Amino acid sequence: MKKPILVLAGGVGGSKLIKGLESVYKPKDIFFVINTADDQEFYGLHVSPDLDTVMYVLSDCANSETGWGIKGDSFKVLSSLKNYGADTWFQIGDKDFATHIYRSSQLNKGVSLSIVTDELRKQFGIKHSIIPMSDDRVATKIVTEEEELSFQDYFVKYKCAPKAKKIIFHGVDGVESAKPSPAFKNALDTCASIIICPSNPFLSIDPILKLNNVLSQIKNFPGTKVVISPIVEGKAIKGPAAKIMIELGYEPSSVGIAKIYEGICNTIVIDKRDAKNKSEIENMGFRVEIFDTIMIDLQKKIDLAEFLQSQF
Amino acid sequence: MKKPILVLAGGVGGSKLIKGLESVYKPKDIFFVINTADDQEFYGLHVSPDLDTVMYVLSDCANSETGWGIKGDSFKVLSSLKNYGADTWFQIGDKDFATHIYRSSQLNKGVSLSIVTDELRKQFGIKHSIIPMSDDRVATKIVTEEEELSFQDYFVKYKCAPKAKKIIFHGVDGVESAKPSPAFKNALDTCASIIICPSNPFLSIDPILKLNNVLSQIKNFPGTKVVISPIVEGKAIKGPAAKIMIELGYEPSSVGIAKIYEGICNTIVIDKRDAKNKSEIENMGFRVEIFDTIMIDLQKKIDLAEFLQSQF
Repeated sequence: MKKPILVLAGGVGGSKLIKGLESVYKPKDIFFVINTADDQEFYGLHVSPDLDTVMYVLSDCANSETGWGIKGDSFKVLSSLKNYGADTWFQIGDKDFATHIYRSSQLNKGVSLSIVTDELRKQFGIKHSIIPMSDDRVATKIVTEEEELSFQDYFVKYKCAPKAKKIIFHGVDGVESAKPSPAFKNALDTCASIIICPSNPFLSIDPILKLNNVLSQIKNFPGTKVVISPIVEGKAIKGPAAKIMIELGYEPSSVGIAKIYEGICNTIVIDKRDAKNKSEIENMGFRVEIFDTIMIDLQKKIDLAEFLQSQF
Repeated sequence: MKKPILVLAGGVGGSKLIKGLESVYKPKDIFFVINTADDQEFYGLHVSPDLDTVMYVLSDCANSETGWGIKGDSFKVLSSLKNYGADTWFQIGDKDFATHIYRSSQLNKGVSLSIVTDELRKQFGIKHSIIPMSDDRVATKIVTEEEELSFQDYFVKYKCAPKAKKIIFHGVDGVESAKPSPAFKNALDTCASIIICPSNPFLSIDPILKLNNVLSQIKNFPGTKVVISPIVEGKAIKGPAAKIMIELGYEPSSVGIAKIYEGICNTIVIDKRDAKNKSEIENMGFRVEIFDTIMIDLQKKIDLAEFLQSQF
């Protein structure tokens, strides 16, 4: 039996590659494990932005203009909540509200996040498994000079403007570390290769790696462990990855990305526009592959997925 | 200083008279105390049907055709929840969802139902106070031959078809009785007269009376205590009052209503169509007033409210 591929991802950047991988791999041959450290309660409801982005992208109902929510969604509930005096900077559409209401209701009944996610995944007609990194609560906190911000405060409310001094994760940076979800654990134990998506290394991937025993298991993993650089020509395709790299003392480049994943991955895919960095990264001990990693359309996503498949 | 009027009411029947009383009394002169024993969680959210009906009616946004919800509301959230496999027999519109989301979110933060209700009341531009009967949870259960049904299961899901053997209230029928809310307690202590709306005596009024000390305080209350019969010509204007009266061994008539309120009220308003019952009810010790109690439009509501005002 062919061993499956384990994919680690965050939201927007990760979901692009996942959309390509979905076309290339059969459901039983690949596991998508998604960051949940951005999860936060809004209006008393449990919102899992990265799980939702992946779910909406895989079911072709994502709003690709905004990068969040469902395309063509209306905002009746939010507009009424605003009338009630609620703070509505976190935008949720009506169909999106249904997702959060359903998830919260199931979680409150004691159903695990893994199981709710699987229920929703099936209702969206998605064949591939979407696995939350953990059923335990983990919460990203961006430590700035002045305060400790929740991820969504930092990302949505303050639009990534505050300077990050440090990023910590409540739930895994303490004495007791959150555990990987059962399906993630199983994927770690049975996979043949690991793909780390071009997601934000600090905000999307680090919380996954910091789950109990995950980093050591990946470090000791003997197969191919490939990361796709989310930085191309010194810039992030989307989001604050380059800005945070500078703030935390990394060079914002595919070389800087390689430094972050030194000792974790053995292979890196850098963009063809960064081919000049190849030998420097090879000198760090990586196998370096060069490809067009900017996934502007479905074909580009599939091309990158097929290229990755050819590496294993 | 003129002493205020205390009004006890449930949802649809109560809100009609309340709409009339709103036109006749200034906000400081009247307290509307509303049944909350029908409250139930749907999709994990705290729904207070009677509070909402009164709030929507007083702010002129109630859907008068259905008797619940907001007029012109859309059902996007509910339709998505249905896709997620949720049981959607309890219909909630999008704007209505915002009410329940806001209320639940505030309750989860530890805000009392009284305070959330007052916040919502203000946002709806309502000047008159809407007071939940209690900040404690009370839950109506309809005991049938086969099972114990929650109020909404009985009322909405099974459309009042099951035969009621007994009606009990979790939260007040046990050893520890739920307390009246602070504003209800204050109204009881300071009011000059009490109006019991033409609401269902078993489902809407009884849970209010069964709150800790309320029944004895009303029994001992020396002022005018007037109930408006919800039964006219042997039938309830709306809802299962007549059906339940028969099931519980009462005659479904204004005489039967008088029997229920014997020792509690000293005055009863019966409909002009029931004038023949006057002397029989007078013989039970009531002052009996006759009026047109079928409130088919706003003027009829105001007429009844003005007639009541003339009694005090």
